[in-house]
Amino acid sequence: MSKGTKPHIEQRINALRSVFNEERIEAFIIPGTDPHLSEYVAPHWKSREWISGFTGSAGCVVVTRQEAGLWTDSRYFLQAAEELEGTPITLYKEMLPGTPTISTFLAERIPAGSCVGIDGSTFSAEAVWTLQKELSCHGISIKGVDDPLQTLWTGRPPMPEAPACNHEMRYAGKGSEEKIKEIRRAMRKYEADTLLLSALDEIAWTLNLRGEDVHCNPVVVSYLLIETEEAHLFIDPRKLTEEVALCLRKYGVKTHAYEEITGFLGRLAGRSVLLNPARTNYAIYSAISAADNRIVHAASPVCELKAIRNDCEIEGVRRAMQRDGVALVRFLIWLEKTIPDGNETERSVERKLREFRMQHPMYRGDSFDTIAGYKAHGAIVHYKATPETDSKLSPDGFLLLDSGAQYPDGTTDITRTIALGRLTDEERTDYTLVLKGHIALAMAEFPTGTRGAQLDVLARMPLWKHHMNYLHGTGHGVGHFLNVHEGPQSIRMNENPTVLQPGMVTSNEPGIYKTGSHGIRIENLTLVVPAGEGMFGEYLRFETLTLCPICTKGIREELLTEEESGWLRTYHRTVYDRLAPELTKEEREWLIRYCR
Amino acid sequence: MSKGTKPHIEQRINALRSVFNEERIEAFIIPGTDPHLSEYVAPHWKSREWISGFTGSAGCVVVTRQEAGLWTDSRYFLQAAEELEGTPITLYKEMLPGTPTISTFLAERIPAGSCVGIDGSTFSAEAVWTLQKELSCHGISIKGVDDPLQTLWTGRPPMPEAPACNHEMRYAGKGSEEKIKEIRRAMRKYEADTLLLSALDEIAWTLNLRGEDVHCNPVVVSYLLIETEEAHLFIDPRKLTEEVALCLRKYGVKTHAYEEITGFLGRLAGRSVLLNPARTNYAIYSAISAADNRIVHAASPVCELKAIRNDCEIEGVRRAMQRDGVALVRFLIWLEKTIPDGNETERSVERKLREFRMQHPMYRGDSFDTIAGYKAHGAIVHYKATPETDSKLSPDGFLLLDSGAQYPDGTTDITRTIALGRLTDEERTDYTLVLKGHIALAMAEFPTGTRGAQLDVLARMPLWKHHMNYLHGTGHGVGHFLNVHEGPQSIRMNENPTVLQPGMVTSNEPGIYKTGSHGIRIENLTLVVPAGEGMFGEYLRFETLTLCPICTKGIREELLTEEESGWLRTYHRTVYDRLAPELTKEEREWLIRYCR
Repeated sequence: MSKGTKPHIEQRINALRSVFNEERIEAFIIPGTDPHLSEYVAPHWKSREWISGFTGSAGCVVVTRQEAGLWTDSRYFLQAAEELEGTPITLYKEMLPGTPTISTFLAERIPAGSCVGIDGSTFSAEAVWTLQKELSCHGISIKGVDDPLQTLWTGRPPMPEAPACNHEMRYAGKGSEEKIKEIRRAMRKYEADTLLLSALDEIAWTLNLRGEDVHCNPVVVSYLLIETEEAHLFIDPRKLTEEVALCLRKYGVKTHAYEEITGFLGRLAGRSVLLNPARTNYAIYSAISAADNRIVHAASPVCELKAIRNDCEIEGVRRAMQRDGVALVRFLIWLEKTIPDGNETERSVERKLREFRMQHPMYRGDSFDTIAGYKAHGAIVHYKATPETDSKLSPDGFLLLDSGAQYPDGTTDITRTIALGRLTDEERTDYTLVLKGHIALAMAEFPTGTRGAQLDVLARMPLWKHHMNYLHGTGHGVGHFLNVHEGPQSIRMNENPTVLQPGMVTSNEPGIYKTGSHGIRIENLTLVVPAGEGMFGEYLRFETLTLCPICTKGIREELLTEEESGWLRTYHRTVYDRLAPELTKEEREWLIRYCR
Repeated sequence: MSKGTKPHIEQRINALRSVFNEERIEAFIIPGTDPHLSEYVAPHWKSREWISGFTGSAGCVVVTRQEAGLWTDSRYFLQAAEELEGTPITLYKEMLPGTPTISTFLAERIPAGSCVGIDGSTFSAEAVWTLQKELSCHGISIKGVDDPLQTLWTGRPPMPEAPACNHEMRYAGKGSEEKIKEIRRAMRKYEADTLLLSALDEIAWTLNLRGEDVHCNPVVVSYLLIETEEAHLFIDPRKLTEEVALCLRKYGVKTHAYEEITGFLGRLAGRSVLLNPARTNYAIYSAISAADNRIVHAASPVCELKAIRNDCEIEGVRRAMQRDGVALVRFLIWLEKTIPDGNETERSVERKLREFRMQHPMYRGDSFDTIAGYKAHGAIVHYKATPETDSKLSPDGFLLLDSGAQYPDGTTDITRTIALGRLTDEERTDYTLVLKGHIALAMAEFPTGTRGAQLDVLARMPLWKHHMNYLHGTGHGVGHFLNVHEGPQSIRMNENPTVLQPGMVTSNEPGIYKTGSHGIRIENLTLVVPAGEGMFGEYLRFETLTLCPICTKGIREELLTEEESGWLRTYHRTVYDRLAPELTKEEREWLIRYCR
């Protein structure tokens, strides 16, 4: 596409600029989130997508009178470049040397004494403070204004209206009453009598509620305030089915209309309110009187409680993995048979994979939009095939397939990079190095107290030795029939003080991306489990949860150590042992062949 | 030794308690440092050793009316236990679960409303603030008092009086005037017009001065204040030789008596004073009027400038390593010949090693007290053989030998664990795992921006997989004809935001310690060097600087990968190529045999 072919984007940007005079602002910032600071948001809150056309899950648009820019991370460099083509928006690639921060960008473009507008409900309080601090050096202030898109965005989708439902005890393993009790115990550590929860997955976990408000994320749009005796849920009453309302009453949870949260918070006085300013939006935060209450800044206790799976959840996720593995094996068999015909495309295999998963009655949808990237498309880290980009698959090169499902007993997330036929030496080397990194992390054992940032290098070193790297994290937490990305744990280059604890689920997904050529990623989910006593205390290790063979066609065996080959053999034996009972004889035979 | 055999320690503690009433304190804390917060201190400041008998380089004594405790880290657990035997002092092992912090200990023992005494000149300002904050929750205050040991310690050694000397340009590679210019440039980044340096190695580096004030650390006791035009050195005038005084005048450095620092700082007004509150003692810090000056808290710019070697220093340290390697090889030949006679001990080989080093005219002394630990003594991480503990060496088991030398062109620090004869399977496995960790770190390559904490796990993982660990760091910085431990870089489990940069020297020293049995450590010094361009920027690697063969008798070859064996072969070839020109024919032949 050539420049200037998306006049509607330019019109929208100009419409936004038209409010600058009235609001007395010189710029406006639109981050891609919702009032709950969700990673993925309901259509109603896709303001950044509306103004820019960029559909990624992370990105922030800044509009000044003369310019417009989009800041996004490495996962979206290629996608953003394509989607911004033909718009007046410049792409700013985060984490690369030479890329200005949003504050630097603004400081160089707007005069001292002027204001930058934001809708406070789509920024965390912490983000606003940081921005204020950075801009104040240049004499620039932040001004909260009413969301201008309320009037500018014609045809804006309504707020999500889907009904909530109960997350059954046989899957949750722990009742909401017990969870609230544990939360109140944790609140006492901070001497807090009130806890404000904004994060939708934290609320869903606490109340054992699930919904359909966000595509692929079974959450319910709401706020939850937990006090020492009562709790208050702020939610659109239309979402409350009889059954849900009954349960909430049982837990001692009073319900209020969603919009009432601000007024309710404004009336609090004499409280110690625990909240995480990095996960609470600025507008909500500002509604609490700091003069009349003590505001305690800390990570929500729910965040850690939720991250540590109970035994019922662990059994559940193991079952979900088996179920998912069966669907994946059937898909792989189908793929192998069908590729020589040359009739399949990225989008058709994506549909087919969903069909295989849908064959199981417990499938509740995908946990994120499948990434099926063939050859060069595999190098676009969060690629989503469209009718325009959809590639025909031929019997050569790699198909990178990153997908996941929601089951009531667990959420899955798996990437396989499948050799459809002939590979170049470079592709085989790259594939083997990524696999070496994956195995090094999978085999790690570590003392209690170890942080993810300490282990990250294990997955990168085989690539680093060849002067290659990937800019995304190696591992993220995964929810339980909830969001596919959850904290507080991570395995990344950046320091994160969270220590890995038994019961935490993380992904293991090193990759390598060569623009215009190929992309490789190998991802399994793992569970942190005890590994036994040792010097100075307990040791932990990762149990690989995902059950799906790893394509062996791309492996240059001479690059694997005996230990690495041994891990792969053992993993494939486990996959076979766990999946075989659910497979037909022909499928079992295929699996044995494929694992060789 | 049985309890109660060291009455002088009890007497000293009681003498200290005798000032409690007059000073209105309920406890007194004696950390083991000097007013410059040095790791190793001159005899005058060995207060903690005087009061407790504990001779390690890290440890803190707390005395209440009823109890006395010593806090120290894992390197000294065994040594401290032995040295405290027969004293009324309890050992508190830091980093172990269940060990109270000093604040917790005090809070449980002394009443709210009371005071804890300290000599503010032996605590960093930051340490005092932390202590104040922790104790204030319990209603306990900190009270600065004049050092009670001034009167209690009869026969206290005087302040160091050794003369200073110039560090020649041919070894420093950069003149003091240029260094001061660079420091002033760095000060401008903080908009600071005054820089207070207390760290003795930072002052020595800045002024190209060396001295003999601290055993093994060629520093000069002094303070340095750098202003935009002038600089002021506070130093005992007896240290200033004609030659040194001449140079200081040339650099525009005015000299003052050491004690005048407090008065001088007290007269500062209208200044922006840059200092590091973690490296500046509380008494000195308090001398600066916070009302009349702006105090800027930041790491000293000298710390980083000093850590990055210039080309002349790099050439120097390579020469120093060659020289040190020749001495070590001659020592190893001697050791191999002499062990069967059964006449040597830990102390005799320590002396012999020093003799071999002394044969070179550029030897200026050891860079720390040699650790020669045979068998179980090797498990005492900072063991120092005494006439009482000195062990006879026989032709079996491991001798752990950690030593280093000061040369004007570089400081060395090397550990070898030498098989004197027969080893157990456990010893060989442990040795091979430590070697695997050492090699993994030595072979690492990493992108610019990598922190030491990210790489630490490489050295530990072979041990962690066997549920073993060591509680010391994997790598520390090393000075240039200066302190054997220097910052800001480190390779440790703890997060340290300093990124590794070309020109930084760090040790690589994993180990394993089994109390009562054996200790193993393999240590080389490395230099961070460019490794070439790569994906997203420049890559770096470690050049191993130390040139001394690694004992191969302890290796279980079947545990090494081909890559690891290859590294060892290449390293031994380098050692041979670099040392051979300085060795006799017989020595060369021995070296070839030893490396096999």
